[in-house]
Amino acid sequence: MLLMEEKILSEGAVLPGGVLKVGSFLNQRIDTGFLREIGREIARLFAEDGVNKILTVEASGIAIAAAALEMQVPMLFAKKHKTSNVDGSVLSAPVHSFTHNTDYNIMVSRDYLGKGDRVLLVDDFLANGAALCGLLELCRGAGAEVAGAAVAIEKAFQGGGALLRGEGLRVEALARIASMEDGNIRFVR
Amino acid sequence: MLLMEEKILSEGAVLPGGVLKVGSFLNQRIDTGFLREIGREIARLFAEDGVNKILTVEASGIAIAAAALEMQVPMLFAKKHKTSNVDGSVLSAPVHSFTHNTDYNIMVSRDYLGKGDRVLLVDDFLANGAALCGLLELCRGAGAEVAGAAVAIEKAFQGGGALLRGEGLRVEALARIASMEDGNIRFVR
Repeated sequence: MLLMEEKILSEGAVLPGGVLKVGSFLNQRIDTGFLREIGREIARLFAEDGVNKILTVEASGIAIAAAALEMQVPMLFAKKHKTSNVDGSVLSAPVHSFTHNTDYNIMVSRDYLGKGDRVLLVDDFLANGAALCGLLELCRGAGAEVAGAAVAIEKAFQGGGALLRGEGLRVEALARIASMEDGNIRFVR
Repeated sequence: MLLMEEKILSEGAVLPGGVLKVGSFLNQRIDTGFLREIGREIARLFAEDGVNKILTVEASGIAIAAAALEMQVPMLFAKKHKTSNVDGSVLSAPVHSFTHNTDYNIMVSRDYLGKGDRVLLVDDFLANGAALCGLLELCRGAGAEVAGAAVAIEKAFQGGGALLRGEGLRVEALARIASMEDGNIRFVR
C-alpha cells in the first residue's frame, strides 16, 4: 500500500533502539481518513476468504481492526489482563513482549470465538510475531479457522513474518520495512 | 439512543459487584454495524460544536472513538503506560480505578494536543467519572478547549455524570442506567 509507505516516510521517525514512531497517524493520534483507507485495503485483500470475524489484541490493534467496519463483520479484541467484565470461561495464550522483555497473557471469552469462525487476525505492527502467535493459539484453542493476518507495518528485518509464513499462514502487510539503519527507512520491493 | 438501551436489555448481563457485562457488542466482541450507529449518533449530537479532535483512553474507548470516522476528525488515545513509542514531552494525569482500586497515569504526547484544539472526550462507560476527569486534566494541561463528553453507557446511579455536569461539562450518554438492582436494568427517562 503506497499510501502507508508515504505516511511512514513523511511522518514516521526512527527512535533509538530500533523503534519506529508512527504516533502521529497510526497508534496514538489516528488519522481517520487514512484509517478508512487501511480498512478498505484490508477488506480488499481478504474479500474472497470467507472471513466472519476480525481478531486483534488491545490496545493499538483496536483502531486497525476498524477494518471490520469495511468488511461488515464483528471485531473481537483479546485483553491483556483479566478484568471484571470478563466472566466465565476464557481462552488464554502467553505472549512474550520483546519491547518490554516481559511475558503476559492475552485472553478472550469462549463465548465469542469458536468452531465455525473463520478469523482474520489484525494488528498494527508485526516484528517478532509474538502477538500474532498468541492470537493464533487462541484461535486453535477455540477450534476456529484462521484465514490469515493483516498488519499495518511489518518490520521484515525481524523474524516474525518469515516464521508465520513458514508455518503456512497468509500474512499481508500494508508496508514492509527492509531496514531502518541510521534512521533511513527502506521498504521491501 | 433507543438502540443502545435495546442492546443492553437483550445482550447485557449484570454480574456480581455491580458490573454490567456488554462484552458481546461493545467492549470485547464489537458489533460493527452497531458501532457505526454509535458513531453517527455521537456525530449528530456534536455536529454544531466545532470539534476538531476526539480524545479517549485505551483500550475499550478506542472502538467507541471510531465515531471520529463519522465526524471526519482525528482521534487520539491517551495511553495508560508509557511505552517505547511515546517519546519527548508528554502530558499526564492521574486516574483512580474504582473497579480495580488502583491508581494509574494516563498520558498523551504534547505533539498531538494543544491550543487551538476543540476536543470531544469519548469513552465506553461513565461511572465515577475518573477517566473523564483525567482526560479533562490532559486537555487543561494542553490548553485545549473541551466541547463535551460522549459516552456509550452512563451508570447514572454513580456520581460521575452529576459531578461533571455540575462543573459545566456537557455530557451526552447514549444510554443512562438508573439502577441495576437484582439484575433488573432500568433506564433514566
